[in-house]
Amino acid sequence: MQTDVQIAQAATMQHINDIGAKLGITADKLEHYGKYKAKINPADAFALPKKQGKLILVTAINPTPAGEGKTTVTIGLTDALNHIGKQAVVAMREPSLGPVFGVKGGAAGGGYAQVLPMEDINLHFTGDFHAISAANNLLAAMLDNHIYQGNALNIDPKRVLWRRVVDMNDRQLRNIINGLGKPTDGVIRPDGFDITVASEVMAIFCLAKDLGDLKQRLGNILVAYTVDNQAVYAKDLNANGAMAALLKDAIKPNLVQTIEGSPAFVHGGPFANIAHGCNSVLATRLAQHLGDYAVTEAGFGADLGAEKFCDIKSRLAGFTPDCAVVVATVRALKYNGGVEKADLGAENVDAVRKGLPNLLKHISNLKNVFGLPVVVAINRFVSDSDAELATIQAACEANGADFALTEVWEKGGKGGVDLANKVVQAIEKNQNSFQFAYDVNDSIADKITAIATKIYGAAGVEFGAEAQAEMANLTRLGLDKLPVCMAKTQYSLSDNAKLLGCPSGFTIQVRGMTVSAGAGFIVVLCGNMMKMPGLPKVPAAEKIDVDENGVISGLF
Amino acid sequence: MQTDVQIAQAATMQHINDIGAKLGITADKLEHYGKYKAKINPADAFALPKKQGKLILVTAINPTPAGEGKTTVTIGLTDALNHIGKQAVVAMREPSLGPVFGVKGGAAGGGYAQVLPMEDINLHFTGDFHAISAANNLLAAMLDNHIYQGNALNIDPKRVLWRRVVDMNDRQLRNIINGLGKPTDGVIRPDGFDITVASEVMAIFCLAKDLGDLKQRLGNILVAYTVDNQAVYAKDLNANGAMAALLKDAIKPNLVQTIEGSPAFVHGGPFANIAHGCNSVLATRLAQHLGDYAVTEAGFGADLGAEKFCDIKSRLAGFTPDCAVVVATVRALKYNGGVEKADLGAENVDAVRKGLPNLLKHISNLKNVFGLPVVVAINRFVSDSDAELATIQAACEANGADFALTEVWEKGGKGGVDLANKVVQAIEKNQNSFQFAYDVNDSIADKITAIATKIYGAAGVEFGAEAQAEMANLTRLGLDKLPVCMAKTQYSLSDNAKLLGCPSGFTIQVRGMTVSAGAGFIVVLCGNMMKMPGLPKVPAAEKIDVDENGVISGLF
Repeated sequence: MQTDVQIAQAATMQHINDIGAKLGITADKLEHYGKYKAKINPADAFALPKKQGKLILVTAINPTPAGEGKTTVTIGLTDALNHIGKQAVVAMREPSLGPVFGVKGGAAGGGYAQVLPMEDINLHFTGDFHAISAANNLLAAMLDNHIYQGNALNIDPKRVLWRRVVDMNDRQLRNIINGLGKPTDGVIRPDGFDITVASEVMAIFCLAKDLGDLKQRLGNILVAYTVDNQAVYAKDLNANGAMAALLKDAIKPNLVQTIEGSPAFVHGGPFANIAHGCNSVLATRLAQHLGDYAVTEAGFGADLGAEKFCDIKSRLAGFTPDCAVVVATVRALKYNGGVEKADLGAENVDAVRKGLPNLLKHISNLKNVFGLPVVVAINRFVSDSDAELATIQAACEANGADFALTEVWEKGGKGGVDLANKVVQAIEKNQNSFQFAYDVNDSIADKITAIATKIYGAAGVEFGAEAQAEMANLTRLGLDKLPVCMAKTQYSLSDNAKLLGCPSGFTIQVRGMTVSAGAGFIVVLCGNMMKMPGLPKVPAAEKIDVDENGVISGLF
Repeated sequence: MQTDVQIAQAATMQHINDIGAKLGITADKLEHYGKYKAKINPADAFALPKKQGKLILVTAINPTPAGEGKTTVTIGLTDALNHIGKQAVVAMREPSLGPVFGVKGGAAGGGYAQVLPMEDINLHFTGDFHAISAANNLLAAMLDNHIYQGNALNIDPKRVLWRRVVDMNDRQLRNIINGLGKPTDGVIRPDGFDITVASEVMAIFCLAKDLGDLKQRLGNILVAYTVDNQAVYAKDLNANGAMAALLKDAIKPNLVQTIEGSPAFVHGGPFANIAHGCNSVLATRLAQHLGDYAVTEAGFGADLGAEKFCDIKSRLAGFTPDCAVVVATVRALKYNGGVEKADLGAENVDAVRKGLPNLLKHISNLKNVFGLPVVVAINRFVSDSDAELATIQAACEANGADFALTEVWEKGGKGGVDLANKVVQAIEKNQNSFQFAYDVNDSIADKITAIATKIYGAAGVEFGAEAQAEMANLTRLGLDKLPVCMAKTQYSLSDNAKLLGCPSGFTIQVRGMTVSAGAGFIVVLCGNMMKMPGLPKVPAAEKIDVDENGVISGLF
């Protein structure tokens, strides 16, 4: 079997001018990065005739080790819509370098549903994440320099909230002490690094409407407290102008192509637990402005990704999604039904039936809480039996969701024709009555409780002492009327990764809370959040190589 | 007076296709980064007809707080050569982000002798330095991961040589302890960060002949010692393939233009103390391949920059420079003659005379040690008096160097016509008898002594205990037959920053030594080397800004 990078390298790419032309963008409005990548100034794109494309959100059941293929379906659905004569554009996240060198080896779709050039997209791409790292680390350097140079703001070195970042899986940097050495080498304090995608700058970047909005949000980052407990913001350090200057090109969405030549905006990529997990607002808006159908995705399962897409991103940007696609596999449902990973290849209708409640809960949330039409996309494997598939189909239809099989990994757009038709039909029925899961002006506790009970199916919420103190603090600072961003395990609807399927009767434990005051949301911590991954024993990096002609191998 | 960024923004740029055309490069061979920047695959460029252009090295007297304007003269000379009908190309270093936000505010020339687009070149440019940071930090993460995952190589955590980097002036990171936290958070050890330009990856990048050579050199980086004192190289961690993959695009030289439309390769930029301080070999070679005259520069004064250009870069790449230009100013010579910075505006022929020996020593070194024709370029200021200038001219001519005034900051190429003519004449006289300052197969001590006595004018060299031990160690490892890279203060010919002019009778104190085994040189430490700058009390970053249309201000 060919690897993803081999399939990608065998594909014939169109010049990016030809991809731009499909969207009505003339070559002189593209900022080229070689022949196959370009940035576009949003102002130039928004000056083109407006299409107001239908917005399709691709989400999934809770992720399992069996794999669901959400990004692959997102790309394949776009190609399928174009294949049946619609005009579709995909908006998706950029991969982070760190995981490429760890386990993952690449994150630009798979098989015949990829975005190209996959090597470039996986390695630096147009430099956006490096610009975000630099802006993040400039703020950190300015903050520590302020403390070192007399500390006029009276910042408490033990209450600095802002951490440095690096786009690498580097556990060694999670907890450090810096400022050691001589008196001229800074001020000794505890510190640490996160991976770039966990930076609040990344979240801000993805939510900013334009460069002016970006600069204002950067200024609102809460970076530290003073010795007498006053909040210190990035703007107090005069840092946000230079940070925005570092991001002036990065903020322009990147245009590339799928393996079948569909236009793809690949832009931004925040974490889906401590942040909202979607590509940039600008990329989604461009896809809608220039396409009849805009296909986009959200991180992790629908309890995290779709909830945040609706309650955070759509609320801040004014989006109204038109349809939700929930990706699942027979294997993942069997895993939810209690089957071990090694046994997923064997037919087991009973296990499928036991796992189905996870899928059905997500369908219900999307339909009944958010008011969206739902299409279930089963990403087909050769081991799937007809009986297993029929069981899923019957359950979906009984619960008011359309159902389609997809084979986009193997067949590209042709393998997603049924899905594309179902999505178009669902949208044309026009039964959309989109709404949020909570009122942003409710108390922080009420907003969290609404998500926990309505979306997760929890019996209730318990707030730990730290969480209670921080709720009071955020209310004191006037930062309580913001959407909440739940940071919990992606593997379960609950906050316990081992509770598969559709658990009930559980209580969500809120341990703590932080605010991303620039991005504009309150991060609610339900468990320990890993903001800096580590490398595995044999990192993917050991296999990644480049030959003397610049041809990359080892990405998959 | 207009700032550099205002002058730059008022200039009309040519499309990079038009700049490429001046070199015979067709548009389809350019990898565009917007309309005004491009990378070029060296293989494509070397396939074009070979010009074997004359190689002009621009260097300077020892730097002073008065400023010499070496980069400005390098650019202005290129424009002047084109102005008098020659076909000249400049090859120069890329600016580092860190200093842009510190004191410097920009490093792409000045006035009417700049490379454009100056904002982009100063901020990220085509991402080369970010790629170098990522490659450096991938190696660090893989090394610490190796130790954490069982340490099969038996690396001593207290003898790790490889440090992480960030392209930021961040003193807080100079000395850290990392690996703190839980048992799963790495292994506790002392560590620290350097600025990206101090990374050995940067030095390797600038010396690599091609992608294959780059990968091999990366593999040869000495990263640590084992508990039983064996050397551990990057290749032992299987890191160099992925590191080279991260650099596959960065290694391609960047083409931009001067304010007058001369082609400029701006590529790479290692430190000039702990590394060799010149742009990439590939950029210089391209400038020579495609231009009749290739103008390039080396960092700091001629004792560091020109020496390393000749003994390290030219030796490794097989270059034969054709002419050296030594930049000086009346003000800087007066400073060398003992005048305080505040008083440099007043005429003082006597002080000029006292400062001249610094200039004359550099002339003598370039002529007599390296065998190069020398032209002195006095970067003219309005405060310079005719008597002061005449004094310098007479001294230069008496010492066998040509002399020219330049006003390229104010007038661009027109202001450098006299210099350009003198350089062309010097080359046409063809009195070049280029040679190295030492034989690379001599002992380490002999190589150092040759530089100290011949170039610096020292009476001798004293090797401290650590230096002696490391010489023995490098000989044990078979790493002694490499060129030496002197890391000493740039402010004096000696190793004491306060000894201005042309000191004599001093002894160079060699405190220690390290090897850049991948880059291929031995770093000789004469004093404390700062590999991570800090920000000043009011960083330039506080004034840098971007408006809603993406227009940058505050760079200078």
